[in-house]
Amino acid sequence: MPEIDFVLVEPLYEGNIGFAARVIKNFGFDRLVLINPPAIGDEAIARASHARDVLESARHCTLEEVIAKSSLLVATTGEFGKSICTSLRMPFYTPRELGAMIRDVEGRVSILFGRENYGLSNDEIRQCDIVCTIPASTDYPIVNISHAVGILCYELAALPRGTYRIASRVELDAFYDHIDRFLDTIDHPDFKRDNTMVMMRRIFSRTLLTPREVSTLHGLLRRTEWHLSGEDKTQNK
Amino acid sequence: MPEIDFVLVEPLYEGNIGFAARVIKNFGFDRLVLINPPAIGDEAIARASHARDVLESARHCTLEEVIAKSSLLVATTGEFGKSICTSLRMPFYTPRELGAMIRDVEGRVSILFGRENYGLSNDEIRQCDIVCTIPASTDYPIVNISHAVGILCYELAALPRGTYRIASRVELDAFYDHIDRFLDTIDHPDFKRDNTMVMMRRIFSRTLLTPREVSTLHGLLRRTEWHLSGEDKTQNK
Repeated sequence: MPEIDFVLVEPLYEGNIGFAARVIKNFGFDRLVLINPPAIGDEAIARASHARDVLESARHCTLEEVIAKSSLLVATTGEFGKSICTSLRMPFYTPRELGAMIRDVEGRVSILFGRENYGLSNDEIRQCDIVCTIPASTDYPIVNISHAVGILCYELAALPRGTYRIASRVELDAFYDHIDRFLDTIDHPDFKRDNTMVMMRRIFSRTLLTPREVSTLHGLLRRTEWHLSGEDKTQNK
Repeated sequence: MPEIDFVLVEPLYEGNIGFAARVIKNFGFDRLVLINPPAIGDEAIARASHARDVLESARHCTLEEVIAKSSLLVATTGEFGKSICTSLRMPFYTPRELGAMIRDVEGRVSILFGRENYGLSNDEIRQCDIVCTIPASTDYPIVNISHAVGILCYELAALPRGTYRIASRVELDAFYDHIDRFLDTIDHPDFKRDNTMVMMRRIFSRTLLTPREVSTLHGLLRRTEWHLSGEDKTQNK
């Protein structure tokens, strides 16, 4: 994974800077760069919340300094397909494609986010290596800068979701056998049995049961069987 | 694609509601639901920006009303793996997995976002069908509610990026032939030629050249050849 700098180019509102710091930290990044920002005051600090460290360690640079230190300079733009024929904006990459592209490289990647009112200038986009566009609705494609930073962070972080163990074949087969026996208990007709068992398997399989869930379902079947046998005895009296 | 309701459960700050309305519209959605929100005033309207329509058409409901109308109720939580053994929060799905899960179904899916200070209560999570967790840094996993809404919208919209035509085999082969002839022109050594040509192919292929780009590169080679032949004439005088 490269070092990723999130560069806000002449942001207008300190609140957005605070929010950007927060999402940067939310996704495990910590490099915020500011080009000609407004004064950072209480509102930025409040919105940064527990990411005050990211806000306070933000580097103040010029675009030239950012360019000089970056192996890859990415312009984010809000309007894709605006001009499909110019190499200024085409081809562009989605945040996901950008993530796939840079995940396994080393170096400094700087991602530029433009001003709240008119984004990045054509000249700034021209100085970037590649263009990244968040696919958005043509009705209203202009995503707030901190939300754009958030979506890029989310895609680039690609944090592991963690894994959990699903029930083993043996556990599942025992469970389906239990269902099959249970269907006997409730006199489920033989001629429907195969189709019903396939449906049971389809339903439970797509839920990717955990061992604990299988165990609880067994327990419910057993408890039901126990009650049924009690009722049978009552009826047989 | 189902109807997707974005439900803010007892949000505390009107600014977040405005931002949520904006990202909802950014990604082509329009259904905002508010459970016991604060007064909606100027700040919400300012942050909604051009999504004032989404803000003003937000439905005010109780949780019971939301539940009654939803085929699938999704709880979003900020802390994954908090308790891997309880079925209250496990298994959970990432926004991407949720998107894959619901993309091809019809019905009403309601996605619940909790309060800014303590999220959704265990009781509210218990009433939901599935849990969705945004994978975030363990250092600071609490994503601002409007950014969480934004990431869910981004994943669920999965708006098409649009396609563009890459150069055809014929166009590319003509380009590589041109490079090969050019290497003759500059007396590139024969014994290196095969490896160099493979490298050229590797470099240009991974850029997925467009027809226009191939055409421009041809032009640059031709112009260089033209200059070289001019210099040759000068040298041969």
